[in-house]
Amino acid sequence: MAYRPHGTHLIAGARVDSSARFDSRPVSGPSHGFANGGAREVDAAVRAAEAAFLRYGQTSREQRAAFLEAIADAIEARAEDLTPTVMAETGLPQARVEGERGRTTGQLRMFAGHIRAGRHLDLRVDEALPDRTPPRPELRLCMRPLGPVAVFGASNFPLAFSTAGGDTAAALAAGCPVVVKGHPAHPATGEIVAEAIEAARTACDLPAGTFSLVQSADRAAGEALVTHPLIRAVGFTGSLAGGRALFDLCAQRAEPIPFFGELGSVNPVFVLDEALRTRGASIAREWTASLVMGTGQFCTNPGVLVLREGEAAEAFIAEAARALSQVAPQPMLTAEIAASFRKGAGELESAGGKAVHRGPSCGPREASPVLLRTQGSRFIAEPHLAEEVFGPLGLVVTVASNEEMAQVAQGLAGQLTCTLQLEPGDHAQARALVPVLERKAGRLLVNGYPTGVEVCDAMVHGGPYPASTNFGATSVGSMAIRRFLRPVCYQNMPADLLPEDAGAGAQN
Amino acid sequence: MAYRPHGTHLIAGARVDSSARFDSRPVSGPSHGFANGGAREVDAAVRAAEAAFLRYGQTSREQRAAFLEAIADAIEARAEDLTPTVMAETGLPQARVEGERGRTTGQLRMFAGHIRAGRHLDLRVDEALPDRTPPRPELRLCMRPLGPVAVFGASNFPLAFSTAGGDTAAALAAGCPVVVKGHPAHPATGEIVAEAIEAARTACDLPAGTFSLVQSADRAAGEALVTHPLIRAVGFTGSLAGGRALFDLCAQRAEPIPFFGELGSVNPVFVLDEALRTRGASIAREWTASLVMGTGQFCTNPGVLVLREGEAAEAFIAEAARALSQVAPQPMLTAEIAASFRKGAGELESAGGKAVHRGPSCGPREASPVLLRTQGSRFIAEPHLAEEVFGPLGLVVTVASNEEMAQVAQGLAGQLTCTLQLEPGDHAQARALVPVLERKAGRLLVNGYPTGVEVCDAMVHGGPYPASTNFGATSVGSMAIRRFLRPVCYQNMPADLLPEDAGAGAQN
Repeated sequence: MAYRPHGTHLIAGARVDSSARFDSRPVSGPSHGFANGGAREVDAAVRAAEAAFLRYGQTSREQRAAFLEAIADAIEARAEDLTPTVMAETGLPQARVEGERGRTTGQLRMFAGHIRAGRHLDLRVDEALPDRTPPRPELRLCMRPLGPVAVFGASNFPLAFSTAGGDTAAALAAGCPVVVKGHPAHPATGEIVAEAIEAARTACDLPAGTFSLVQSADRAAGEALVTHPLIRAVGFTGSLAGGRALFDLCAQRAEPIPFFGELGSVNPVFVLDEALRTRGASIAREWTASLVMGTGQFCTNPGVLVLREGEAAEAFIAEAARALSQVAPQPMLTAEIAASFRKGAGELESAGGKAVHRGPSCGPREASPVLLRTQGSRFIAEPHLAEEVFGPLGLVVTVASNEEMAQVAQGLAGQLTCTLQLEPGDHAQARALVPVLERKAGRLLVNGYPTGVEVCDAMVHGGPYPASTNFGATSVGSMAIRRFLRPVCYQNMPADLLPEDAGAGAQN
Repeated sequence: MAYRPHGTHLIAGARVDSSARFDSRPVSGPSHGFANGGAREVDAAVRAAEAAFLRYGQTSREQRAAFLEAIADAIEARAEDLTPTVMAETGLPQARVEGERGRTTGQLRMFAGHIRAGRHLDLRVDEALPDRTPPRPELRLCMRPLGPVAVFGASNFPLAFSTAGGDTAAALAAGCPVVVKGHPAHPATGEIVAEAIEAARTACDLPAGTFSLVQSADRAAGEALVTHPLIRAVGFTGSLAGGRALFDLCAQRAEPIPFFGELGSVNPVFVLDEALRTRGASIAREWTASLVMGTGQFCTNPGVLVLREGEAAEAFIAEAARALSQVAPQPMLTAEIAASFRKGAGELESAGGKAVHRGPSCGPREASPVLLRTQGSRFIAEPHLAEEVFGPLGLVVTVASNEEMAQVAQGLAGQLTCTLQLEPGDHAQARALVPVLERKAGRLLVNGYPTGVEVCDAMVHGGPYPASTNFGATSVGSMAIRRFLRPVCYQNMPADLLPEDAGAGAQN
């Protein structure tokens, strides 16, 4: 029996409707009506979050860890509703949906373990020196939660980057109430996940405003959320244009707040000479597989590949085209994304990308893979060629020399990832590229592919603009919690007045 | 023999002049002419910094630690020039100037020790799991330097927050070349310190562009600096209006960069009942001493004090007025600052602050202490009363009840510090205030005064806006280095391609 959504917001524990409505547009199955929230619903949710913070911000790490685990359990308990709903709304295949659910619950449990260990507290104690001239009082630094956090659901990860995704998990772990602005491409998915969070919240006896989901298909709701005076930080994954507009609103506030936006990236892959010579064909097949995975709808999709021109490069391109010719059209997340993909592919061609392969024509909500090629000199001269086209598109850049490859690297905008394919004979060239590439990206990979982001302590999912709006932060991995914490120093504070985490009981 | 400045910029190791000039305006002694830099000089300095970064950003921690220590030594070697020059340019007394020099060299040495220990690296390693499905490659996270950093000299700390101050020390420690825009109130001081840095740089054989000082009395130089495409971050201490304008420029860039600005704060002190009853007179004397120290020209000057109305409050105010009546006029850093002080004091009176004490009339570049009072209800209703007046001014706010005291706390804008004066009988009230105050400030003090910022691991000199533009950061203490670092993840990177700090040799 397919899940039938209520179509309401979840605001501070209550199902709330709006007079305005919007209809979901699933890839398959019936459409449903949803409350279309605006400034009024956002204000109610944020005020409730602020009211909740006085208690939620003072909860123990153990209480929050138990809450995160309860959310993970509750999401698993809704698997039967969730899987078909996500598949219908997004067109993603079952294995991907189930894998993403595992990643989502895994993230929640990782943050539970992370805060239990107190590793986010960054506790620093300078002991009192009463005999010094002048005497030094005791000083303690502890990371503390910010207050209400806004999270935007992402179209391409309906679970892992949405309602109970990494941003929400990190903020709740930090001690921050969360208001999610649901993505209108998967409102029923968002509703089920919000109900799972709500079940965990009541089971853990936490304040009602700790979590809210405002459904909306209007830009106005997001604008109201990031400009609300009580919101202290924003987590966002989405397009460059939309993200930059919200970033600007955050910076223009009377009291500016941090906007942690993950925007666009083409994740270039550099295939060095020995690797090309010895593994060219297999790299071509692996790269194209990474390129079309999930219809290319990953932030870390490796859309650009750079190699030295010549016979081996031609063989590489032919093999890549052959591999892509076996890929059938696949559904995209929304009709708008499919239309953007076609438009973006056309613009790259106009800018000088020559088509090597174009998949069969397909439906308006589908995409067929596209392979383009250009020369390094053209790529360097034409910045549009380096712009992200969200979907299964690859651009091969052939360079005339190692120097031109270095120039291509030097000219890159900020990226989530840069990848080197190399063999031992390539290390000398790699040593020249690494210092350039590490300024361009949050993650450098060797002999791998950037899709499939490991959720762990050492992950960085971020990078210089436009990959993200804060190159000092990551939105995946345990360090993601740092975005929602701020340092507070307690000077000469009696033990009974210190927050529990800053006191002697805190682990360091 | 008084130091005679060259009056040039120091750009990438060379003394560079400009056709435009400005004259210094010392409190005492002769004026000197200085090159008045603009966009051209800024561009030369920033390009040199970028060129230097490829090598300076790859220096070992030991090389940079030795450089920081050499700067400290070189500053000490210039003490004979420095002390009279700072005194003449700023009017600060000898003991303060020497103390500030000690703090400046102490900061440099603290960062040397901090990076030697590798504590800033935040190294995280997730080991490879080749037998997992899918296999996990090794992932290493290490904090890496950003690239060229802009630093603005501050008028009120000619040494500790200026040319070789905390921002410069933190950025150089991180591995970032620095371009300082010198404060025009102390150009000769800046020149001597820049020469000390230059002496250390050549002794340590570091690239010429590692450090530059551009002298300027024009806003255009600062604007050119923060909007230069090669600048990656900005450290600033100064006024709310000036800082916000630069923050806005940074946020509006095609590629936004972080602006770490420390702007304004009134650093409220809450005197709780038992403390007022048992120590009122001594708190009044200590508070006013903190208030007038350095002519009140500290960012942490405690400009607002809150207590319960009644007989004890009246005795407190009388004692504070008595103490201030013994304070003579003192010079201010610049004539503009003295004029702003008089204007600001007048505006607080217009907004409802009643004068309790006004010191004797004084010269145009001097200030006499001012003590004002108002009621809690008025303070809550009139936001202008909570605005910083830079100088020796105190506003006593008498509240009708503990609830009104909590409302005053709740209504505060962001602060660098909040202070509680309390005795054991006050803990219950303090427990209600601490969760409110810790959202308002970067540092909470008990039974102390915020002036005199300890340079240590646990210090936080920052706070919610407008105290700073980044509540997640501090500009004093070892955590200040984090502003100039970003996390980079290395996935499956062979050991010989890893940066030294990310490799097995790094301490954690």
